[in-house]
Amino acid sequence: MEIISSKDNKKVKEARKLLTKKYRKNSYLIEGFHLLEEALKAGHSIKQIFVEENKLAKLTAMIGSEKSLTDLSVNLVSKDVLKSLADSESPQGLIAEVAIIEEVIDFSASKFLLLENVQDPGNVGTMIRTADAAGFSAVILLGETADLYSPKVMRSMQGSNFHLAIARMNEEECFAALKQAKISILTTTLSANSVSYKTVEESSFALVMGNEGAGVSDFAVESADKLVHIDMPGQAESLNVAVAAGILMFSL
Amino acid sequence: MEIISSKDNKKVKEARKLLTKKYRKNSYLIEGFHLLEEALKAGHSIKQIFVEENKLAKLTAMIGSEKSLTDLSVNLVSKDVLKSLADSESPQGLIAEVAIIEEVIDFSASKFLLLENVQDPGNVGTMIRTADAAGFSAVILLGETADLYSPKVMRSMQGSNFHLAIARMNEEECFAALKQAKISILTTTLSANSVSYKTVEESSFALVMGNEGAGVSDFAVESADKLVHIDMPGQAESLNVAVAAGILMFSL
Repeated sequence: MEIISSKDNKKVKEARKLLTKKYRKNSYLIEGFHLLEEALKAGHSIKQIFVEENKLAKLTAMIGSEKSLTDLSVNLVSKDVLKSLADSESPQGLIAEVAIIEEVIDFSASKFLLLENVQDPGNVGTMIRTADAAGFSAVILLGETADLYSPKVMRSMQGSNFHLAIARMNEEECFAALKQAKISILTTTLSANSVSYKTVEESSFALVMGNEGAGVSDFAVESADKLVHIDMPGQAESLNVAVAAGILMFSL
Repeated sequence: MEIISSKDNKKVKEARKLLTKKYRKNSYLIEGFHLLEEALKAGHSIKQIFVEENKLAKLTAMIGSEKSLTDLSVNLVSKDVLKSLADSESPQGLIAEVAIIEEVIDFSASKFLLLENVQDPGNVGTMIRTADAAGFSAVILLGETADLYSPKVMRSMQGSNFHLAIARMNEEECFAALKQAKISILTTTLSANSVSYKTVEESSFALVMGNEGAGVSDFAVESADKLVHIDMPGQAESLNVAVAAGILMFSL
């Protein structure tokens, strides 16, 4: 196999576009062996793989005998070319292009995390990873929440998108579907007219986390079955949104 | 007051050094009005302030009549000069130099957070902010944990260093002091020979959080009165360290 050593190679240029949101219509990039392994295990379609020569043996060992390098459209690339496709400083010598799957949310499930206008990709990824760890059924992205397929979300999710259903929905439609399925909407807030999370007894619910600065929208407050807050005995005025989500998901 | 418009101004050059750890022996920089307000409220010594001209009125209003611009050594600077002193994209037109205070840990208190080799400044700051919100008494930095006074730690702490005692200690001395004070050392781990955090009943304890990749050290395991883990019903292999710390601090 020839080694692609030019960043201007057509395949490389096309793949590099996937670092930008507007080009991520059908596929996205993941970095490193761990995420590739998770994608393969979950049966997601791998469109192609870029790998540094010194990592080819590791890749061959990982994919085993069931699949071949040709099945997976493996491209050997130079270190520089690989780096040009990466968002992180250390992409571990491998980047793969994965097909986007349109997820359908099953509203007969019991625990949902709703992210409304969450801006920071690290927070979005961390909350999805925590929802996965806590055994939630699905995550729904609302409003201006950061793009699921951004490299930073991918990195902080650590493969959790291959474990649970995640979909972007229109907020009105999402809340209507939850209400029809008799799932309680628990909207988190810092405001006083809310109850402590410790009093929540619902076993089937959708937890709404809002924007880092502005919190949840008026619409999420009005649509709530219950407004919920975390009691803070100390002096800090608020918690990081991903920490707050973690406390709630592991106690509710 | 004259406006400093050169990045090569001596005062500016000296202050800019504080962005680098090795120069932060006696003081450090904070960004924005909120942190300055917290520093003043906590009675920390402000060595000097750099402010953009269009924010001078806001600063004057904030410091009120008790202090003067001269007391606080206020320097008017151009937008470019201010930016050259900032770590963040939007320093909100103000940067202040604050004197480092040597904190003494009171081991007769009841709840301690110990950060051992936590690498990411954002994680360090977020955990200190969470400890503050949860009403912890103090945070102790061990080993290779990121520098408290780094701009990124400052930003994610959101002023919590002005609310609770934080000190860097030698690990052996710290554990010895805790044992002498009969404070239980709860070391967090992913390993199987540990108990669920839900079974912990100690009311006086030191919670040890470890490195993002490697976890806690063997020494922290050996020194533990109890090894503690978080039960994860889902598929994710681990939690972000700051999320895990949040779950533990709010439930213990």
